[in-house]
Amino acid sequence: MNDAIIMNNAHEWQQKASKLDQNDDLSTCKDLFELPANIVYLDGNSLGPMPIAAKLQAKEVVEQQWAQGLITSWNTHQWIDLPQQVGERIAPLLGAKKNQVISCDSISVNLFKLLSAAILANAPRKIVLSQKDNFPTDLYMVDGLSSLMGTEKVELVSLASDQILDFIAREGEHVSVLMLTHVNFRSGEIHNMQEITALAHSKGILTIWDLAHSAGIVPLELDECNVDFAVGCGYKYLNGGPGAPAFVYVNQRHLNTISQPLSGWMGHAAPFAFEHDYEASPNIKKMLCGTPNVISMSILHAALSIFERASIAQIRKKSMCMLAYVETLIDDQPSLSDLHLITPSNPDIRGSQLAYEHPKAYEICQALIAFGVIADFRAPNILRFGFAPLYLSFDDCFNALVILTNIMHGKVYEQAKYGLKHAVT
Amino acid sequence: MNDAIIMNNAHEWQQKASKLDQNDDLSTCKDLFELPANIVYLDGNSLGPMPIAAKLQAKEVVEQQWAQGLITSWNTHQWIDLPQQVGERIAPLLGAKKNQVISCDSISVNLFKLLSAAILANAPRKIVLSQKDNFPTDLYMVDGLSSLMGTEKVELVSLASDQILDFIAREGEHVSVLMLTHVNFRSGEIHNMQEITALAHSKGILTIWDLAHSAGIVPLELDECNVDFAVGCGYKYLNGGPGAPAFVYVNQRHLNTISQPLSGWMGHAAPFAFEHDYEASPNIKKMLCGTPNVISMSILHAALSIFERASIAQIRKKSMCMLAYVETLIDDQPSLSDLHLITPSNPDIRGSQLAYEHPKAYEICQALIAFGVIADFRAPNILRFGFAPLYLSFDDCFNALVILTNIMHGKVYEQAKYGLKHAVT
Repeated sequence: MNDAIIMNNAHEWQQKASKLDQNDDLSTCKDLFELPANIVYLDGNSLGPMPIAAKLQAKEVVEQQWAQGLITSWNTHQWIDLPQQVGERIAPLLGAKKNQVISCDSISVNLFKLLSAAILANAPRKIVLSQKDNFPTDLYMVDGLSSLMGTEKVELVSLASDQILDFIAREGEHVSVLMLTHVNFRSGEIHNMQEITALAHSKGILTIWDLAHSAGIVPLELDECNVDFAVGCGYKYLNGGPGAPAFVYVNQRHLNTISQPLSGWMGHAAPFAFEHDYEASPNIKKMLCGTPNVISMSILHAALSIFERASIAQIRKKSMCMLAYVETLIDDQPSLSDLHLITPSNPDIRGSQLAYEHPKAYEICQALIAFGVIADFRAPNILRFGFAPLYLSFDDCFNALVILTNIMHGKVYEQAKYGLKHAVT
Repeated sequence: MNDAIIMNNAHEWQQKASKLDQNDDLSTCKDLFELPANIVYLDGNSLGPMPIAAKLQAKEVVEQQWAQGLITSWNTHQWIDLPQQVGERIAPLLGAKKNQVISCDSISVNLFKLLSAAILANAPRKIVLSQKDNFPTDLYMVDGLSSLMGTEKVELVSLASDQILDFIAREGEHVSVLMLTHVNFRSGEIHNMQEITALAHSKGILTIWDLAHSAGIVPLELDECNVDFAVGCGYKYLNGGPGAPAFVYVNQRHLNTISQPLSGWMGHAAPFAFEHDYEASPNIKKMLCGTPNVISMSILHAALSIFERASIAQIRKKSMCMLAYVETLIDDQPSLSDLHLITPSNPDIRGSQLAYEHPKAYEICQALIAFGVIADFRAPNILRFGFAPLYLSFDDCFNALVILTNIMHGKVYEQAKYGLKHAVT
């Protein structure tokens, strides 16, 4: 499609991309991934691509550890320690001292553990305060807990983002838990974790932060911010594979005192003593429930080795530069003027995505995919581009935007729903 | 070690094994697995070995579907349907009509969903009745629910096996849920599912059956027995890999009415509408919570293809024959007279394992492993042999027993703790 570029100042934008790539100290990280040919992948915030280390580990854990080691691999290959080993690799990405992070279950299940623990610890307060446009599963888990414990024990209050601090100021002493997603899944807006946590604490509120769109991509200082609890995702910016196990953070000061109700045998102080009564592990293992998913967790563990090669500071710097490049390029294109940016324009308060509203967002997204640019659509009208500095170059972004401008200029997206949908596999 | 066989009637036992193998209509199923050389694996009841189909699928899902398909594989490779697809392969093994079984999470997490659903449905009854020597995590999950809801809502009563029916007869109208493991993890004893379920129902009690040591190895008729709920394991007799996802069964008659509190987005009637309020799926998907673990679930799905080649009736027939062979051979050996069988001698009421008590059970188990016979030890003094007819021959059993008799005759196990432990990998 480059033969017929319809882009304002195309040459200058290409030159600029080229120069930025030359000065990119993360450019070699792309070699750590196996990416399909002729694709620009702008959806690593939904599912990260496959690190080569993950592929090798998948083969190792299946064909050697499982097939040859059989049951003995629980010890010889330390499967039993995997949840903590993965936690140790994630902790530095969160600004967390070790022994506070462990990998297990899904975000949803882990939120249930933390919500329950916090509600019990902060009784008789009953309000769980959250954001109306939080990722739905976070709100659903509060609904579930409320249906189990009764609305007299748990009550969800979900408000627009700009009403939350007022509510805390006004009604904070009735709030048990403040549960927020650090980077909003639609807009990419970042909450000020430090200020909000401090305000919550001043009213005796416990905080749970969902780091699904933060971990591995934006700087986090959970310990420094004095956060109580957090959860996060293994399959987005951590590149752990589809449906990879999630993780959970519990601040050291709560580890001795909290109890969580999904008290499965792996969270027991001595799981293999097969004791009749549950006695929670005194450490972060108390957050475990059932048998860990060894194959997936082992793959996630390997994927995390990439962060030995790239610091979060480097990643954040490139991410901010990439968003600035894309945003200004889009602003420079008359054919893209119908795209309305809903991500904050202040680079300090946005994650690593740009989200645009457009009435034909779904069709545009399908057309992009048909031409090899994988972005995603979020109902009802949002086109979301995620930027993962570990494997994206500025030239990739330039190429994606050439395709976007061409699609928008020719209104190719009008046809998208009639047949382009499955053009990319 | 065959050079110096110390076994009573060794020749006859070998001949017998040979003849049984000749008449074994499942003998070719062994070719569907990749097993380490020179190992007899008697621990498939803890972790099944690797089916070749699972190895191929691991490569396919990682290297093709993830690496090449990226996010589009949710649709093109139907990742989104995997929990139900796996459920459809498991249902016939349980005697369950379709649309009642789904794969997700761990047994522990799934028990929590079912216990909560049952307690809510059967309120104000509060007793969860179970067996004292149930697998511990089952009891721990009741503890957890009780700690969350309060002992005035949930109370665990765990009794010796022979006291349970009496308790139901006497106090049944106060019992909310009867939660039993069908095949006991230590002794292998089978509960009479039909009779017990009928008795429970006559008192208005809901039943939850744990099928960890049943699914894929003993005949099950959940629909016929009118069971309410069940859970089971993907990594034992279903050979789905270490920590494979579990499954859950909900009888059709409860699907519309029950609600479970782990109400994550995958259980929503329309997960990708990203609605603010939770609305449970009207079907078995309401048991889902977070994002399914695609890699592990896909491997489990492939592993289940083996049951297209072998019926549960065939598996059970060979299993019973194998247990009889091993039991009578052991009875015939003076050197094994210290092993005390705790598995029922009636073949109809035991699963596919033989468990023996011995004061040195741990050391004997380590010595067996050192000589290539992988059995397992269950605290405090149980040596447990599991028999999986899909990949074990009678000759394998004979060889394992030659090693056992030699170890016991020479008391080689006395040294086990001093260095043989890691001889097998």
